[in-house]
Amino acid sequence: MQLTDEQTAATDEAKQLICELCHTFYLQGWVGGTGGGMSIKADSLIVMAPSGVQKERMIPADMFVLDKEGNVLIDPIARPGPYKPPKLSECSPLFMAAYELRGAGAVMHSHSLNAVMATLLDPSATEFTVTNLEMIKGIAGHGYYDNCIVPIIENTARECELTDRLRQAIKSYPKSQAVLVRRHGVYVWGNTWIQAKTQAECYDYLFEVQQSS
Amino acid sequence: MQLTDEQTAATDEAKQLICELCHTFYLQGWVGGTGGGMSIKADSLIVMAPSGVQKERMIPADMFVLDKEGNVLIDPIARPGPYKPPKLSECSPLFMAAYELRGAGAVMHSHSLNAVMATLLDPSATEFTVTNLEMIKGIAGHGYYDNCIVPIIENTARECELTDRLRQAIKSYPKSQAVLVRRHGVYVWGNTWIQAKTQAECYDYLFEVQQSS
Amino acid sequence: MQLTDEQTAATDEAKQLICELCHTFYLQGWVGGTGGGMSIKADSLIVMAPSGVQKERMIPADMFVLDKEGNVLIDPIARPGPYKPPKLSECSPLFMAAYELRGAGAVMHSHSLNAVMATLLDPSATEFTVTNLEMIKGIAGHGYYDNCIVPIIENTARECELTDRLRQAIKSYPKSQAVLVRRHGVYVWGNTWIQAKTQAECYDYLFEVQQSS
Amino acid sequence: MQLTDEQTAATDEAKQLICELCHTFYLQGWVGGTGGGMSIKADSLIVMAPSGVQKERMIPADMFVLDKEGNVLIDPIARPGPYKPPKLSECSPLFMAAYELRGAGAVMHSHSLNAVMATLLDPSATEFTVTNLEMIKGIAGHGYYDNCIVPIIENTARECELTDRLRQAIKSYPKSQAVLVRRHGVYVWGNTWIQAKTQAECYDYLFEVQQSS
Repeated sequence: MQLTDEQTAATDEAKQLICELCHTFYLQGWVGGTGGGMSIKADSLIVMAPSGVQKERMIPADMFVLDKEGNVLIDPIARPGPYKPPKLSECSPLFMAAYELRGAGAVMHSHSLNAVMATLLDPSATEFTVTNLEMIKGIAGHGYYDNCIVPIIENTARECELTDRLRQAIKSYPKSQAVLVRRHGVYVWGNTWIQAKTQAECYDYLFEVQQSS
Repeated sequence: MQLTDEQTAATDEAKQLICELCHTFYLQGWVGGTGGGMSIKADSLIVMAPSGVQKERMIPADMFVLDKEGNVLIDPIARPGPYKPPKLSECSPLFMAAYELRGAGAVMHSHSLNAVMATLLDPSATEFTVTNLEMIKGIAGHGYYDNCIVPIIENTARECELTDRLRQAIKSYPKSQAVLVRRHGVYVWGNTWIQAKTQAECYDYLFEVQQSS
Repeated sequence: MQLTDEQTAATDEAKQLICELCHTFYLQGWVGGTGGGMSIKADSLIVMAPSGVQKERMIPADMFVLDKEGNVLIDPIARPGPYKPPKLSECSPLFMAAYELRGAGAVMHSHSLNAVMATLLDPSATEFTVTNLEMIKGIAGHGYYDNCIVPIIENTARECELTDRLRQAIKSYPKSQAVLVRRHGVYVWGNTWIQAKTQAECYDYLFEVQQSS
Repeated sequence: MQLTDEQTAATDEAKQLICELCHTFYLQGWVGGTGGGMSIKADSLIVMAPSGVQKERMIPADMFVLDKEGNVLIDPIARPGPYKPPKLSECSPLFMAAYELRGAGAVMHSHSLNAVMATLLDPSATEFTVTNLEMIKGIAGHGYYDNCIVPIIENTARECELTDRLRQAIKSYPKSQAVLVRRHGVYVWGNTWIQAKTQAECYDYLFEVQQSS
């Protein structure tokens, strides 16, 4: 598949950004143990980090490029052993859900301990709620006095089996910019990579405050 | 508006410093999610970080330059999308309060979790108090045995609406070098950027000790 | 002892990797105070970090090279004082146990506080158990619903005296990829350095979740 | 005062090391808010970081050089404002105590929260004690089963007034490589900068474990 010059430039920038940001996320404990992931829309295409690789050591050539329906257009070049052959993220259908249902420009998945603990404050709760914190204003459509509600869905044995629940939660909570997965982590998106990252940071902070309170 | 050579040199140095320091503050969790901010007086002018941008990824060209009454003299050049057009910080009148009422040389605003938790130790307290800690000596005018008192004001829906309360607190607590904002964060200033940063670090440490005790 | 060109290339890469990874482990608090260690199999040889040195400041020339029976083939060059003469890790027989009994490709030893606290949750427990956490899937042969069990052995005055207990634990828990040592830390291995590091990160995360719950 | 070539080389190396190590200590929260400090013996001279400066932003030219009786031989060159004129550390007589009474090769002072909390576990205790932890072996003369005891002295309004108490504690606890100061921090030394740093890391870890237990 041949990309246009504009598509090449846009996907190259997105590939570089994903590597750079995942390095930062690793230092924050969000993507250790090859967990978590990130995807950015570039022009009309989608750039996505592979599954099961060390997220803080990725290079741009490791990234997949998909069309906007989620079909793989460009496979990354395999690295020599002991690196495993590149594998599209199990999160792929989950990332696609945010692109399709919310018109997102970027999606992130974090295994942050703060997110996991937020799902265990009340192990049977189906929502995480927080209010009256300045950082709530970092979540689109939310003010300081608003209830910031994030749906919590139950985890499944395989990540791809989460898709239906995640899609349902996204539809049921139109104001939320994230979905928590019990004992697993969180999916966060935004109109742009900047908003996705900002909202991921704000949510993580809110999860942490609630846990410390 | 044309700056003198001295003003250009001084503001350039301040712009560079704000970028460098905000990067460090980000790693400490003070300015995540585009929150927090910083301003430094340079010659007779004021350099101020913009609002709603990723504080750890700013470049000198992103900074505003204001005169000492707080009027914008130089607007930063807009970056291409997905970056938003530059916007003067909502904190601007709050930063100006410290410049005007205290003759500050620099002002910082942090969303540090330690600061927020310090306002929740007693959710109705109007003061945070700590004593008998070596790090108190890092706060101007304070010795080891002194009570180090920081006023706590209630948060508002919009940051600019905090101005009156903040000004009142600054006047009522002439020994304090900081004002805490409930469920929001802290404003800290100093005669120079070095003192502002030093005091911000000392206060944050004091907030953390009190929380761990 | 003369290495082949292939062996030289493989051991050089392993030496470089150990230095790089130990620097990262230091920032995570796993190898402070000269504690912890790492070893990687390279071609048919074994590269091993020395004992009692600052793990975050090692250079490739500090590494030992052993044959697959654990005999030293290449001693590192001594650095001038105040550096101490190079000493093979006391962990050496422990690392060899994972190579021999599990066919490991790399072994790590961490003094992480999370690991130590995991052995103190119940100070008389001989196993650490965790289940229903996504990060369990990062441990070879484990799914989300599996019990992830790590044997805990008692510590001894000298590290080399741990060997029998460690070998016994490795044999008794064929599914485990790690052995905890009470009030000491953890040994983790994997088929490759990537898997060893990934599993070390996953285990550490699991230890931390259990402690926070 | 003219240094010999050997003295110049040795002090230059020590100056560089202090800057490098203090940067690392800052990231660990040991020397924030201009607190803490470090000194290294170089040849027959003593290199010492100045007081009241940002420890993570020091350059070699900021260092004092003293003779082995503690007299200043070389004053650092003053930096232009807003930097303050260089001032010898208030810790100077405290550092000298470890050089004189223990023949130390390096001394460190940290305001680590772990150290402060260790003095507050029992606010009237005059000793911190820990045993049965592998990291105790990082403290000279201590084995795994030994009691690792660190004397705790009460803080004073001015750092220099601590000298008598510190000297007394050093003499009364000949096995200890550190002295804790209540609500202040810890002094740690060693035969070389490597041992001083190693022991500082081990003690800090031991303080943290005790607090988490």
